[in-house]
Amino acid sequence: MLSLRSSTRLFCAKRLAYQRTVYSQASSDLKRVFSKIDDLKPRFIKRLKDAVAIPSVSSEPDRRNELFRMAQFIKSESEPLGVTLQQKELGLQDGVTTSKGEPIPLPPILQGTLKGSGSGKRILIYGHYDVQPANLEDGWSSDPFTLVEKPDGRLVGRGVTDDKGPVIAWINTIQAFKEAGVEIPVDLVFCIEGMEESGSEGLEDFIKQEKSKGFKGVDGICISDNYWVGIKQPVLTYGLRGVSYYSITISGPSEDLHSGLFGGTTYEPMIDLTHVLSRLVTPNGKILIPGIDEMVALLTPEESGLYDKITFTINDLKDALGNDTTIHETPKEALMSRWRYPALSIHGVEGAFSSPGAKTVIPAKVSGKFSIRTVPDIDLKKLDQLVFDHVEKSFASLNSKNKLKVELIHAGKWWVGDPNNWNFEAARKATETVWGVEPDMTREGGSIPIALTFEEELKKPVLLLPIGRGDDGAHSASEKLDTVNYIQGIKTMAAYLYYAGK
Amino acid sequence: MLSLRSSTRLFCAKRLAYQRTVYSQASSDLKRVFSKIDDLKPRFIKRLKDAVAIPSVSSEPDRRNELFRMAQFIKSESEPLGVTLQQKELGLQDGVTTSKGEPIPLPPILQGTLKGSGSGKRILIYGHYDVQPANLEDGWSSDPFTLVEKPDGRLVGRGVTDDKGPVIAWINTIQAFKEAGVEIPVDLVFCIEGMEESGSEGLEDFIKQEKSKGFKGVDGICISDNYWVGIKQPVLTYGLRGVSYYSITISGPSEDLHSGLFGGTTYEPMIDLTHVLSRLVTPNGKILIPGIDEMVALLTPEESGLYDKITFTINDLKDALGNDTTIHETPKEALMSRWRYPALSIHGVEGAFSSPGAKTVIPAKVSGKFSIRTVPDIDLKKLDQLVFDHVEKSFASLNSKNKLKVELIHAGKWWVGDPNNWNFEAARKATETVWGVEPDMTREGGSIPIALTFEEELKKPVLLLPIGRGDDGAHSASEKLDTVNYIQGIKTMAAYLYYAGK
Repeated sequence: MLSLRSSTRLFCAKRLAYQRTVYSQASSDLKRVFSKIDDLKPRFIKRLKDAVAIPSVSSEPDRRNELFRMAQFIKSESEPLGVTLQQKELGLQDGVTTSKGEPIPLPPILQGTLKGSGSGKRILIYGHYDVQPANLEDGWSSDPFTLVEKPDGRLVGRGVTDDKGPVIAWINTIQAFKEAGVEIPVDLVFCIEGMEESGSEGLEDFIKQEKSKGFKGVDGICISDNYWVGIKQPVLTYGLRGVSYYSITISGPSEDLHSGLFGGTTYEPMIDLTHVLSRLVTPNGKILIPGIDEMVALLTPEESGLYDKITFTINDLKDALGNDTTIHETPKEALMSRWRYPALSIHGVEGAFSSPGAKTVIPAKVSGKFSIRTVPDIDLKKLDQLVFDHVEKSFASLNSKNKLKVELIHAGKWWVGDPNNWNFEAARKATETVWGVEPDMTREGGSIPIALTFEEELKKPVLLLPIGRGDDGAHSASEKLDTVNYIQGIKTMAAYLYYAGK
Repeated sequence: MLSLRSSTRLFCAKRLAYQRTVYSQASSDLKRVFSKIDDLKPRFIKRLKDAVAIPSVSSEPDRRNELFRMAQFIKSESEPLGVTLQQKELGLQDGVTTSKGEPIPLPPILQGTLKGSGSGKRILIYGHYDVQPANLEDGWSSDPFTLVEKPDGRLVGRGVTDDKGPVIAWINTIQAFKEAGVEIPVDLVFCIEGMEESGSEGLEDFIKQEKSKGFKGVDGICISDNYWVGIKQPVLTYGLRGVSYYSITISGPSEDLHSGLFGGTTYEPMIDLTHVLSRLVTPNGKILIPGIDEMVALLTPEESGLYDKITFTINDLKDALGNDTTIHETPKEALMSRWRYPALSIHGVEGAFSSPGAKTVIPAKVSGKFSIRTVPDIDLKKLDQLVFDHVEKSFASLNSKNKLKVELIHAGKWWVGDPNNWNFEAARKATETVWGVEPDMTREGGSIPIALTFEEELKKPVLLLPIGRGDDGAHSASEKLDTVNYIQGIKTMAAYLYYAGK
């Protein structure tokens, strides 16, 4: 979501430039794998390029066949490496058709296994092969579905970091083990979906159904679908905020009206909406809905101390924002606001005039969209009730004759794991081996609801192992993955599997 | 802008069903003209059908050639009747190109004259041949550019009432005089533009330039580009509100952000905007910007009495709104709110998420659009300053680090004429002759800025002579003109010219 700024700075941070390195901590087996990863770099970039070239946008029904092509591509790249992948069909997508009105199938989940040398550990790898929409007109400097290698090391294209890069990186990892003649010391189970950017439709049911079948015996889950906090310091992620997304629909006159003919004579839904929206949150982020703060877990001295250790400055945040629009003055306050406190964002209004120019319309029906990022120990059902009550009360106080409907559009729960279990331990050691530094243990402001589903359903620890940087700009028109992060990320994945099996 | 509701009711209002009538008040000359109009009804409907078939949408650059086709059509229909029309070119449109990036010419103004029998009166007829956009997907029951004659008498299609119907009606009027062998007792001057739906670009300059040339010697102006207040009672219009259209742009982070990653850490422009917008007006229409009320002309007992005479009930307003979302309980209050008090409408937000569904974006830059309908004696320059001051003060009180820009997008002044001058007198007598009732003398909530320009530049009285009904749904996907209004409207125009010349 962020553009790359001051890219020249990357060259100053020497540790982050891609180079062959001697990994003193690594075993000879791992060194052989790392060396092979270096050798295969051109092949790995080519593989990512081929993946980016398939415009597998899950939110565009007319491109649904591209999702099937993409699934097939992953299958055909993996199978020569010994991975058995099955395309699990999920039936038709609910309520969605192509522009010609034809129903469309959900993209398949790729489920499969790779038998390792048998330490007994069985690790489930989750990723997704669908991407956000991308059009040249959105501001891309070149065709978003053609991967471009920039002189500064950036690989630019839709999906390079979210999430084709990590998914292809896993395939590359397996190839490197194989070509280095080193056995992978764990069994792998794959769950690669094609609907993540569209709400992961069908995945939760699939996990529930497979927990006693294909996902049986899994010891831990590894998800690589997020980012470092900054641009230099590797991290492991043990917490995510949830998100509850709401809409407030206010309907008035039965059709859009001309403001000249009717302005001043009728209650206008858009006016009511601005009043109701303005009562949700203050400009400096204080949520005005009573009862939410009281559900937030208290900050313990132990937790408070964790934030002091994170490699993050307020200037990092300002860089990411592109200017000084930060609410907080200290990095600790900013990190806590991102990771452990709820936040309410207003996203926009549907049904009102939204084009450039001037239109003198009184919109008859408008929907304001907002969401609340949730954190421990917010009870989501209770949250919904607090939101509904507050919005209804705000609206009632307006004494408008219009009609209000407030509803939850979707909700994903927050998740916090234990950063000291074996799964994180293996990833921590892997990160140290590859990057030469201890990773920061971080949480995320964003939401990956499926993390919690895996943990709740399989009752095994989930690890979030990001390979991209905080400025990768997932979802933006400048999405990138740095070559060094891609290649070192593959090594980190390899070392993770290696240490998880030892 | 309104759909037709309870169309069956139209049959109950017997006077409004189309039928040949004996006009007892009319002179024998006028009776011959009226009879000819009845005879030519099929021809007149065909002419309107041909006009509707040309999709002359001025706001769609790729259809610019249709505007030229439409101008040509009017020319070719008028010239056999003795009207000399010149296509006055206005140069290229500022800042607008076709989808291929080609600059486009402004549509021509049709300027011309028709010499009458010479009473000395010289009347300028204004109208426009461009229309609002229309697509089948907007909810039209049939192709919007194919006029459909409904069994209940409605003529449905884009532009039938706004403003192709009235423009073609003037041509029909001339044809009826000619074929009835009756001389038109006034000289006519035409000014038919093709940019009315897109801000009348070029017209004001044209009027200023022609006032001592083509428009020299004009005694009065007649504009037929508005509607009755209701659906039964003919009206003449002697006042219009002005409109001042503003945008409030708030910019924050340099790019759109992911609300998970940044929610709670940055000032969000959309949140600021809801606060600023909510301080503009209350749900029941009270403008919160200090100083505006003080500029509104005081209500005199004489003026107050005028509203009591208007054929208008609160149920008419409810019918027009489609339900009971009226602010006022009495028709008088509602009429005054529409005609003589300012009103502030919030139209929408540009730059925020406006599609169906859920997107977790923090928009980086949003523009709220609102407008104020202005009335006597509001000073527009002073109004702008009051708006800017209030918005800036509201924003400052938020203590946000975001940036604010508030600007005027366009302004058109209010107009109030003298309903007792010869121009209105002729139209009043014409209406009585054709409809058998005295017209209500009304003002309009909407704005036709060019009315004031004509009056100020030519220093002659402007008359607004609507032929369509209040439920015609100009700009909507059910735009219609009732056949009876079309045909009786032509007769009213004919009688107006007749009486203006006597």
